[in-house]
Amino acid sequence: MLAAIDLRMYPKTDAELPHPCAHLVHAALLDAVRSVDPSLSSEMHDTSQVKPFALSTLWPRTRASGDTLAVPKYTECRLRVCALTRPVFEAVSAALFPRLASNGSIRLASHEFKLLHAALESPYGGAAEYADLLHDRGAGIDLRFTSPATFRRRGLNVPLPDPMLVYGSLWQKWQAFSNVQVPESVFEEMSAALALSRMDGHTRVWKFPRYMMTGFVGIAGYELVGKVSAAARELFGALSSLAFFAGVGYRTTMGMGQCRVAADTAEDDTADSDRDVPQESSCHAV
Amino acid sequence: MLAAIDLRMYPKTDAELPHPCAHLVHAALLDAVRSVDPSLSSEMHDTSQVKPFALSTLWPRTRASGDTLAVPKYTECRLRVCALTRPVFEAVSAALFPRLASNGSIRLASHEFKLLHAALESPYGGAAEYADLLHDRGAGIDLRFTSPATFRRRGLNVPLPDPMLVYGSLWQKWQAFSNVQVPESVFEEMSAALALSRMDGHTRVWKFPRYMMTGFVGIAGYELVGKVSAAARELFGALSSLAFFAGVGYRTTMGMGQCRVAADTAEDDTADSDRDVPQESSCHAV
Repeated sequence: MLAAIDLRMYPKTDAELPHPCAHLVHAALLDAVRSVDPSLSSEMHDTSQVKPFALSTLWPRTRASGDTLAVPKYTECRLRVCALTRPVFEAVSAALFPRLASNGSIRLASHEFKLLHAALESPYGGAAEYADLLHDRGAGIDLRFTSPATFRRRGLNVPLPDPMLVYGSLWQKWQAFSNVQVPESVFEEMSAALALSRMDGHTRVWKFPRYMMTGFVGIAGYELVGKVSAAARELFGALSSLAFFAGVGYRTTMGMGQCRVAADTAEDDTADSDRDVPQESSCHAV
Repeated sequence: MLAAIDLRMYPKTDAELPHPCAHLVHAALLDAVRSVDPSLSSEMHDTSQVKPFALSTLWPRTRASGDTLAVPKYTECRLRVCALTRPVFEAVSAALFPRLASNGSIRLASHEFKLLHAALESPYGGAAEYADLLHDRGAGIDLRFTSPATFRRRGLNVPLPDPMLVYGSLWQKWQAFSNVQVPESVFEEMSAALALSRMDGHTRVWKFPRYMMTGFVGIAGYELVGKVSAAARELFGALSSLAFFAGVGYRTTMGMGQCRVAADTAEDDTADSDRDVPQESSCHAV
């Protein structure tokens, strides 16, 4: 099972937070999960394997300046919590939904954020079974990278939407968590035919307390070149759709690599055009 | 020996040309070389090896619309012809310079272009020995890709400024043409430490008569991460400098992959910002 929870909250007092603050979100989420399922919480924290969840950083409607987010009290902020397995979704739900129902809050650094709303609805939330994802979406798909995406290769970061790295990362997650098995040969056929058809973007640096990460934001188009089997086209569609839940690349549990199939709209193409402002495309839609 | 000839010319009548028209430049150059050295001309044409020259397309001061270049008569146009070996430089010189001295012209499609000026001077021309290039330019270097650059990997194009592909392409040219040998181990040390530190750009499609090519234009910063030997830093400087003469990637003899170390100026960073206009940064400087 796959779920993306679109979570809204506001700070009870004026809040100043680092941007990104996904490490604070990460800590708050694991805290919340610990209260309902301590062993799952430590598994989510400790495993060095591919992790069964992804997070966004906090995106208020106000704009950030540099590496700081100044959020006036009562300002609605958005957050995505994505689960790649049913146990994680159930634990996150058990941690969040009762708290929501009781007008509860979560704490990011020293700031209390009142939970407002959590939904599994588009455009930022959703739910699906892995099997649902396996359908042909065509030979060309655009992905929008709304938070910095980077990949590891031979010990170095590669902040580029390279088809091999992007779809390799998604395939790794599919293999780790999907209850629907797809033969490796189908992935090999797909990736041998997969080219980058277009790209428009730039790198952005995210400063975390103990390290900086450079990643790609923008849009990238992928295309299956030549004739491929129906199974390969379906896997291409599935992995592309999986990006919405799993993110791509490195540190997706720290807000990086938020990514989704780009809708064919003008809004989508112009998102993230204001480069000195950290934002996801949602900021434009508000 | 390395040389970049900054060639200026104007059409004697109003000219309409395809954009890019580097295939026409390519044909005209080989024609001109044929008149002085037929065997070198066919070698330049036929060899499937790494080619010992690179060309830009024609860049007039006027702007192009879509895939067409409308050049009013007497409009100065710029062209770069780069030679990676002394024999090629000598043949190109013998083909061009007497023609220049005698007020001669070259023909692109049905249009006669009067040769105005050819110079080995910066910012678009230059000359160097391979040995000159081998010096430490620091651990971080920005490259500006002024015409679409793409690379081949497993039969597919990769239109991204991936450090492995960019510096792999330059290293291939260094090995093919440099009279200064650098051990493979130095390249290996350098490339193992080489990361992409920043990127800002997009893909652009160039339509040639029989095919379309998608490549990357924009800026990419490369950085040696960690401690590397002096020899590796010098090779990093050398290959970065080589880009000015050799171009990078695929079809550099057809105007693609024009590239140079980016100067640390505002002009350089904002070049190519006008996306519907095919241009090199020179168009801004005029």
